[in-house]
Amino acid sequence: MPDKAFVHHADAVTFATTVDKSEIYETAMASAVALFEPQRFWVTNLANAASLMWYAFDALGMNVNWAGFYVVATNVGGGNNRRDDDDGKPAELVLGPFMGKVACQTIVFGRGVCGTAAETAKTVVVPDVDKFPGHIACDGSTKSEVVVPILDNAGTVKGVLDVDCLVMNGFDDVDVRFLEDLAGLVGRSCEWDG
Amino acid sequence: MPDKAFVHHADAVTFATTVDKSEIYETAMASAVALFEPQRFWVTNLANAASLMWYAFDALGMNVNWAGFYVVATNVGGGNNRRDDDDGKPAELVLGPFMGKVACQTIVFGRGVCGTAAETAKTVVVPDVDKFPGHIACDGSTKSEVVVPILDNAGTVKGVLDVDCLVMNGFDDVDVRFLEDLAGLVGRSCEWDG
Repeated sequence: MPDKAFVHHADAVTFATTVDKSEIYETAMASAVALFEPQRFWVTNLANAASLMWYAFDALGMNVNWAGFYVVATNVGGGNNRRDDDDGKPAELVLGPFMGKVACQTIVFGRGVCGTAAETAKTVVVPDVDKFPGHIACDGSTKSEVVVPILDNAGTVKGVLDVDCLVMNGFDDVDVRFLEDLAGLVGRSCEWDG
Repeated sequence: MPDKAFVHHADAVTFATTVDKSEIYETAMASAVALFEPQRFWVTNLANAASLMWYAFDALGMNVNWAGFYVVATNVGGGNNRRDDDDGKPAELVLGPFMGKVACQTIVFGRGVCGTAAETAKTVVVPDVDKFPGHIACDGSTKSEVVVPILDNAGTVKGVLDVDCLVMNGFDDVDVRFLEDLAGLVGRSCEWDG
């Protein structure tokens, strides 16, 4: 994808409203590439990635009510008050940058949609959150959800990308492919230890 | 302020619309206290604080187009690709969690509104950004701005809280006092080195 020069960074999320879903996602991905190229700090890149997703979904008229990240506490540097479990498995995910309403601060590794995606390192698409065993509701109005794991270049799970929707079956294959592409780019583009 | 138990975390930003500005800000501060009490990781707390501000301003009908944080790169742990200047001064602020459109990733320490607030450790209220020397426009539609420094318990500047508005003179004394209270709470409530 071509490099992109921003006059104002906010223009990165000014999407044409006459183009189709794939074009909006391609524009968002091109902006992400341009934003991450000179900047590797994971907090900064996750913050801008959350905004990119949020305004792409907004341009598409989707009812997304939350878009952001949880990170594996012990895999993102520092973490003085973090811990692993006795078996060496990460104990929890902690809330990272996001767009939307206030969210749960921690999620036990392996629990809920986010914890499952982090533990299995596989995307989890949930058409109806009420039917997902152990779903953790940060917002009672969420009806469907997609969570994509974020792996660094060594294949270690560093966190998850999490998107919630106010309607059931909120995400189709094109949406999921975009989110997997973005999560892949984020994983490769960040320094995760500070 | 009393402890607050959340049924859903998202309810922390469900504000009554019939109350006045001070009551909305008191509710937001009570939520912030409750959210930060069990959680000290700065990324998590800044992410939820940005959401709290955003929805408080939304409830008040203010035209806030960006609300979030920049952090002093070398003062937040890790920072492998960060550096101080030769004189030992921090080189730059980096973008932290926020709500709003994609934003500038770095700001030179001492430059622009954010850099000035970080360098002087004083709140900067800018009624008209076009009249602020060296103003850095991440979004060309921003007209006014408030930036409040965030200090840890030892008095070290860890970052700034930054809010932009689409209208001139967007913030009054009550708004600024709320932002200073929130920035103070954030500064005291976080572990900043990971």
